[in-house]
Amino acid sequence: MASSEAETVGFIGLGNMGAHMARNVLKSGRKVVAFDVNPSALDDLSKSGASQGASPAEVAAAATTIITMLPSNPHVLKVYLDATTGVLAGAKSGSLLIDCSTCEPAVSQQVAAAAKESGSTYVDAPVSGGTIGAEQATLTFMVGAPSEASFKQTEDLLQHLGKKVVYCGDVGMGQGAKLCNNLVLGISMAAVCEGHALGSRLGLDPKVLADILNTSSGRCWSSDTYNPCPGVMEGVPSARGYTGGFACDLMAKDLGLAAAAANSAKPRLGLPMGGLALQLYTLMGQHGSGGKDFSALFQFLSQEPKA
Amino acid sequence: MASSEAETVGFIGLGNMGAHMARNVLKSGRKVVAFDVNPSALDDLSKSGASQGASPAEVAAAATTIITMLPSNPHVLKVYLDATTGVLAGAKSGSLLIDCSTCEPAVSQQVAAAAKESGSTYVDAPVSGGTIGAEQATLTFMVGAPSEASFKQTEDLLQHLGKKVVYCGDVGMGQGAKLCNNLVLGISMAAVCEGHALGSRLGLDPKVLADILNTSSGRCWSSDTYNPCPGVMEGVPSARGYTGGFACDLMAKDLGLAAAAANSAKPRLGLPMGGLALQLYTLMGQHGSGGKDFSALFQFLSQEPKA
Amino acid sequence: MASSEAETVGFIGLGNMGAHMARNVLKSGRKVVAFDVNPSALDDLSKSGASQGASPAEVAAAATTIITMLPSNPHVLKVYLDATTGVLAGAKSGSLLIDCSTCEPAVSQQVAAAAKESGSTYVDAPVSGGTIGAEQATLTFMVGAPSEASFKQTEDLLQHLGKKVVYCGDVGMGQGAKLCNNLVLGISMAAVCEGHALGSRLGLDPKVLADILNTSSGRCWSSDTYNPCPGVMEGVPSARGYTGGFACDLMAKDLGLAAAAANSAKPRLGLPMGGLALQLYTLMGQHGSGGKDFSALFQFLSQEPKA
Amino acid sequence: MASSEAETVGFIGLGNMGAHMARNVLKSGRKVVAFDVNPSALDDLSKSGASQGASPAEVAAAATTIITMLPSNPHVLKVYLDATTGVLAGAKSGSLLIDCSTCEPAVSQQVAAAAKESGSTYVDAPVSGGTIGAEQATLTFMVGAPSEASFKQTEDLLQHLGKKVVYCGDVGMGQGAKLCNNLVLGISMAAVCEGHALGSRLGLDPKVLADILNTSSGRCWSSDTYNPCPGVMEGVPSARGYTGGFACDLMAKDLGLAAAAANSAKPRLGLPMGGLALQLYTLMGQHGSGGKDFSALFQFLSQEPKA
Repeated sequence: MASSEAETVGFIGLGNMGAHMARNVLKSGRKVVAFDVNPSALDDLSKSGASQGASPAEVAAAATTIITMLPSNPHVLKVYLDATTGVLAGAKSGSLLIDCSTCEPAVSQQVAAAAKESGSTYVDAPVSGGTIGAEQATLTFMVGAPSEASFKQTEDLLQHLGKKVVYCGDVGMGQGAKLCNNLVLGISMAAVCEGHALGSRLGLDPKVLADILNTSSGRCWSSDTYNPCPGVMEGVPSARGYTGGFACDLMAKDLGLAAAAANSAKPRLGLPMGGLALQLYTLMGQHGSGGKDFSALFQFLSQEPKA
Repeated sequence: MASSEAETVGFIGLGNMGAHMARNVLKSGRKVVAFDVNPSALDDLSKSGASQGASPAEVAAAATTIITMLPSNPHVLKVYLDATTGVLAGAKSGSLLIDCSTCEPAVSQQVAAAAKESGSTYVDAPVSGGTIGAEQATLTFMVGAPSEASFKQTEDLLQHLGKKVVYCGDVGMGQGAKLCNNLVLGISMAAVCEGHALGSRLGLDPKVLADILNTSSGRCWSSDTYNPCPGVMEGVPSARGYTGGFACDLMAKDLGLAAAAANSAKPRLGLPMGGLALQLYTLMGQHGSGGKDFSALFQFLSQEPKA
Repeated sequence: MASSEAETVGFIGLGNMGAHMARNVLKSGRKVVAFDVNPSALDDLSKSGASQGASPAEVAAAATTIITMLPSNPHVLKVYLDATTGVLAGAKSGSLLIDCSTCEPAVSQQVAAAAKESGSTYVDAPVSGGTIGAEQATLTFMVGAPSEASFKQTEDLLQHLGKKVVYCGDVGMGQGAKLCNNLVLGISMAAVCEGHALGSRLGLDPKVLADILNTSSGRCWSSDTYNPCPGVMEGVPSARGYTGGFACDLMAKDLGLAAAAANSAKPRLGLPMGGLALQLYTLMGQHGSGGKDFSALFQFLSQEPKA
Repeated sequence: MASSEAETVGFIGLGNMGAHMARNVLKSGRKVVAFDVNPSALDDLSKSGASQGASPAEVAAAATTIITMLPSNPHVLKVYLDATTGVLAGAKSGSLLIDCSTCEPAVSQQVAAAAKESGSTYVDAPVSGGTIGAEQATLTFMVGAPSEASFKQTEDLLQHLGKKVVYCGDVGMGQGAKLCNNLVLGISMAAVCEGHALGSRLGLDPKVLADILNTSSGRCWSSDTYNPCPGVMEGVPSARGYTGGFACDLMAKDLGLAAAAANSAKPRLGLPMGGLALQLYTLMGQHGSGGKDFSALFQFLSQEPKA
């Protein structure tokens, strides 16, 4: 196995997710050299035993395995490709670069090509599971890697940060899998919201309807595990005013990435339902619910008229 | 139990579904007196031992339990309410009228009110399961009944025609449950179609994507039991050119009923995603795929451009 | 010409529109015998010189030309077809029945067929122009009539109630024309709203954008006559907080009728954009803007996120 | 006038549009130095008297006014910003760079900022009018310029290439105006298509319906100037099998740019109707109509069901 005693891992991006993940690398017995644009995030991690690099390039120069956890497309491009401060400007030949950010598959593929030219291996490994999953090391990683060997090497490390590491295919396919899953999720949640909204308008008991859906062809994760209609289930966002969970704004961000990927696919692909779902979650944000769990779409759609 | 030896059941509507269902009533040991506007359908059933009535009213006069299986709203209104030939014109006081047609909840409620005035009990009991379910007595019935007693009486009979009889609430709620389930189904199938369409455009292996969906938050009946992407599952319509199964035209019919119910609800309810799904299945019919299974939406959406 | 000195016209339906219209019949020198379910509306009109009938049937018995102005489908069916109190129960052979209500074309055609059987002529003549047009006799009537002669006879009377009487074809085509126009209006208003919303987000001056649209291929009545973006035009609802004008709820009602007509057309017709516009105006009603002018869609769509 | 005798203009991008435009620069009495990645396009223009540059940088070095006419975002970025071959690598201080390509406003703004840093002035000036307008010098230019002076200078030259040069505001606003107009156009065309589709299904005469729309609130350029329903107007694509005109694929491209601009606006903007219109024109391309005029949407939507 690739993980030696006292291996050093570079970690770039210490936000809500990344800080927890970097701590779990430390807990696995590895050393960490870290970088973030926010000095206080860096200092916090240093208290847990990490050392600091002055730039992505310096971090890359200090380790042969690097993890990045960044907000979106432009950050990934800058952190990896900046001519003087970027990861590739500092990486040793043969390094493994594990990018846990969510971005467009084409961006991952662009960085991977540049990494290959400079002698390193880039894999995309976006996550699901939220900040709780990051803290408790129960994340799921969807990995796109150029070879089974590079996947195995990635898995050896990421197993300490999550409970599931799935091999999705070549570079970019981790992002593809995440975007496709969240596309299906965003639409099927809307399906369940509209079903419950209609049921309630017709006078159908929500628990009865949920039972029928969950034993019939309408069954979805959004109906049997995360039901959006208050009163049907305990322990889900709909039972606590749509707090916690996965915010509308984040769902809109992922659906926006899916729409962009479809729009720039060759040949171009239309996503009529996904496009409409994006609009609905976006409208919710415009009308004050962007920070609520995305299952609050039930509330938005079933709202009775106000004067 | 309510079923006596040699009980007589009236049966009106001997189409693709009704003929099988009436035969299953006969198999349960009951006598059947039947009516259909198509004489040859009636003659066929007579060969299995049923007797014939000259009109819905005559059938109603010859039995105290009546089952109807009709195409849609206008047929239900005419068969029950016609002043001279309708069921209510002939029904004995205390009769149980079981309507297995799919129609708008408000239509069921209108007929139920008229039945109550004339001393009978009407329950709505729409089905899922298709012609194979009708033949093999494996249908699911969703029942709206004015009392638990009338539901029990309905269940005693319908258990011989299907494997599941679900109590959904008061009259109209059987229709409501069916429309809500099919609304969720029509949208969540579209979700899975778009997810697989995007996955394929991005180069993701369909089986890998299905595995990810089915173990994640994108899981739906449409992904794990009835996957629309050819090559993912055996024994489903997508594995045989989208033949068999549940036709696009029928999905469009049910989504049209759901849209109409939402549009005339008080207060009016919008169903943006259901409305768009209705349009897509309707467009498929306009462009030659109305008779294909509704999972052919995958094919319609992922189609590569033609010159 | 049909209009004699002292001709008597029956008038049924004295709501916000009908009361004004009936007064304009009186002003044209004709006598009016009227009916409304609301006694005080009837008494008000009596003060202007109208006499009263006790039911639609009585009104019909007292005149050979009848105008009706009713809210929607069910009212039209009841007022004309009720076996004892309906117009057809009282109408003299050879009467002209002018229905100014907005309803589905198929409803007009059903009533027309019944009228023909009982020896009368029914024409549909829905209006545009609102309560101000009704008061000032500047309405537009869109007329569906079974013959040019019946259209001319209708026009002779309606010219006193409006400024334009358009012959649209056979019975039902008046409704058809109105629904089609409002379908185009509802969607093209949404087009202009989204165009201005995007322009504003990009930093484009709204007046410059309106000038460009109005001299280019984006030109619409909704951009050059009724612009929804505050600051572009004077004297329109967007210049006064979206008060006055044509309410969202009424636009949703008309789009709902268009959707129902398309859904029950043979063969079924899909209206994807009209369906989505219906959902948006409906959502506006659910979120408190149902009584605002429909151009308030600009405000709903361009809203900046609230916390 | 700013144009001196024997002024030299650089021209980069000699495609279907650009070749005609460059010839019109020559016809205005100016010299042209040109570049295109396709050598035979360059040779063709040389026969009309233009000289050749070996790269965008060389062209820029040979003139102080440069026009570019390129397909889309990535081409614009590369032609202007490439470190060795790009326009900015060769441009003299004080040059005027006129970009007639259609791209996202943010791309124009990015290039403009880089141009300013290197001492040049960049204006965006996308066109409408098609290849016939390019040949006959009847194009409309929508110009975003950092000052009135730079707009005037741009207008002096572009007036020889078109009949209208509109000042839309600061850099990027030319693109903004074009995208907003085409967004309104794409949706309002769909409005007219659905209106005529419903009218035809209801039995309304298309010419009667067009007359009503064009004198009512449904009036649009798409109804009164470019009606999509065959038989209503002469001399438009719908009168000749939807040939000529503005292709579905191009409308989808522009709606895709509008959707991308809205999606990346801060704050994010939803365009529900524009998003759905994009899907419909995209679906048309997938189903064989991508090269037809975009008014063929009428045909796509009103299609009667095929078996």
